[in-house]
Amino acid sequence: MQNLMNRRWLLASYPEGMPTSDNWIMDTQPVPDPGARQILVKAKWLSVDPYMRGRMSPATNYTKGVAIGEVMQGGGVGEVVASNHPAWKVGDIAESMSFGWQEWSVLTPDTAGPVGVNRIDPGLAPIESSLSWLGMPGLTAYFGLLELGRPRPGDTVVVSAASGAVGQLVGQIAKLAGCRAVAIAGSDDKLKWCREIGFDATINYKKAANLTAAVKETCPRGVDVFFDNTAGHIHDAVMKNLSIGARVVICGRVALAAQFGKPDIGERFMGHLIITRASIHGFLVFDWWHRRSEALQRLSDWQRTGQLRFKEDVLEGIEHMPEAFLRLLDGKNFGKQLIKIS
Amino acid sequence: MQNLMNRRWLLASYPEGMPTSDNWIMDTQPVPDPGARQILVKAKWLSVDPYMRGRMSPATNYTKGVAIGEVMQGGGVGEVVASNHPAWKVGDIAESMSFGWQEWSVLTPDTAGPVGVNRIDPGLAPIESSLSWLGMPGLTAYFGLLELGRPRPGDTVVVSAASGAVGQLVGQIAKLAGCRAVAIAGSDDKLKWCREIGFDATINYKKAANLTAAVKETCPRGVDVFFDNTAGHIHDAVMKNLSIGARVVICGRVALAAQFGKPDIGERFMGHLIITRASIHGFLVFDWWHRRSEALQRLSDWQRTGQLRFKEDVLEGIEHMPEAFLRLLDGKNFGKQLIKIS
Repeated sequence: MQNLMNRRWLLASYPEGMPTSDNWIMDTQPVPDPGARQILVKAKWLSVDPYMRGRMSPATNYTKGVAIGEVMQGGGVGEVVASNHPAWKVGDIAESMSFGWQEWSVLTPDTAGPVGVNRIDPGLAPIESSLSWLGMPGLTAYFGLLELGRPRPGDTVVVSAASGAVGQLVGQIAKLAGCRAVAIAGSDDKLKWCREIGFDATINYKKAANLTAAVKETCPRGVDVFFDNTAGHIHDAVMKNLSIGARVVICGRVALAAQFGKPDIGERFMGHLIITRASIHGFLVFDWWHRRSEALQRLSDWQRTGQLRFKEDVLEGIEHMPEAFLRLLDGKNFGKQLIKIS
Repeated sequence: MQNLMNRRWLLASYPEGMPTSDNWIMDTQPVPDPGARQILVKAKWLSVDPYMRGRMSPATNYTKGVAIGEVMQGGGVGEVVASNHPAWKVGDIAESMSFGWQEWSVLTPDTAGPVGVNRIDPGLAPIESSLSWLGMPGLTAYFGLLELGRPRPGDTVVVSAASGAVGQLVGQIAKLAGCRAVAIAGSDDKLKWCREIGFDATINYKKAANLTAAVKETCPRGVDVFFDNTAGHIHDAVMKNLSIGARVVICGRVALAAQFGKPDIGERFMGHLIITRASIHGFLVFDWWHRRSEALQRLSDWQRTGQLRFKEDVLEGIEHMPEAFLRLLDGKNFGKQLIKIS
């Protein structure tokens, strides 16, 4: 593959606060050859996800950070162009969270678990779905809501970053579970979409004069399940409105991207927890990987029968990766952020 | 009963920060007569518990606060002196969380639930046990640890206020469940007692130069169950040492007695929760009242077979109630704080 070139985004520096485009540098290298039992994949789509903020750090979060000079970590889906693995042939579609911010990737299909390689059936859904509702974000919404949030019919389920990749799915699964779904997001356009896909009520956190009061007004019987993708002051406002026995799922902390690695100082809600007998659950989707096929089957069924809709926010060209990631951290994306590789 | 006098502590004012003895005033009233289906009980023992801080407030916590001029709320156990209830006779021993800070109390046995009246068998254990290991604190330790903490053999269980009424029981029940029990308390004497009753390791939080490091050193594999009676900086130090899948039981917040009702500002640990997939559970023992007899039977069995020991801290005379409560808030008690009524 020496006559083909691979554009890659390398991590150039660790951000102190909010990442900036200077934190990455693009280089161009000859496309590598796959080794024994490896495959070479040409990217069609790359994923842009909030968890990537955690990789831009020398510290180990739940997994190691990316080293300076390494290709930035990220998921992607593309077409197998060369294969040294007996189970994979040229033309197959491969998805992997180990893809990296690059146009070509050598993958190792024998790797087990979340960083392994998944075969994608292009007849089932557009292949980019494997990065969103039919992939990691879909699994996050499914297991986070159903296993940690444990929704019951009649529950009020509040979702922050409700129009995001995970949030829009959480709201729709909550409706399937017989709940009342409440969306919190930062623009009226986003909330209009949330209502279209079935959320019963919406709160624009940028317009609410008193967000705690707005949550109280929208959830007069209290919040039974809080699926939190943001942390920050949205978290605070919902925590003050928990019902007796509420479950809080801590999925993400995108509102704290500028202070990653620093202590999050603010009000603690242990007194509220005692009064409400509520619980807070930290959550990583990888713990549920053994039930991946169950979740993907149901998500696929729901999508096929029109019960699951999904909005994507697409930029085209690998040169836009840093820009796409930064707008995600800033809440400027509308739906799942993707990069299409032409 | 007009010729007998009842000394009572009335709430005189709501404290702004830490309560002081000025917040109560003693009055002396004729002992009242019991009404229809009521009993008159002469106190033998009164209970002193951290939850009473929550009652010294005009705000509703999980239950209403005591009004100014009302008898201060609290549990007690004593002898029935007059009965208008067919199921109760003079000489019976009655325990109730509705007793109040007073020498005589008119109780209503038909009241159901935690504020009702319990018949105590003086042959089973000293009657004051019904205020401690064989009563509400015992139930708190039993259900809080076993139902919310869900200890497994080999787990490391860390207990704050470990020599207190609840803490010493949590440690011993953790040992019965096959766990390693770690005590945190504020004096070497208290920790010596903790080791005597079976705690495997101890931390004096007043002597630790770096409490987070001390917890890490004492719990090198992380904390699997944290039974928190204190909140404050002990909470913070343990939260930074949670293991994967840890359970945190929020039982009490005695370290925050001086700032009751005000926001508790400090480090939030949502990032730690995601990394560890840990959970935090608010807890009120009253939710488990329907299983009271199961717990009391087991606690009683364990005590009879020498597997449960218990330390009490006794002051004599109702005039010492405020003093006893204030030393409890200050961590000066050593074991369950009780008042003996002569």
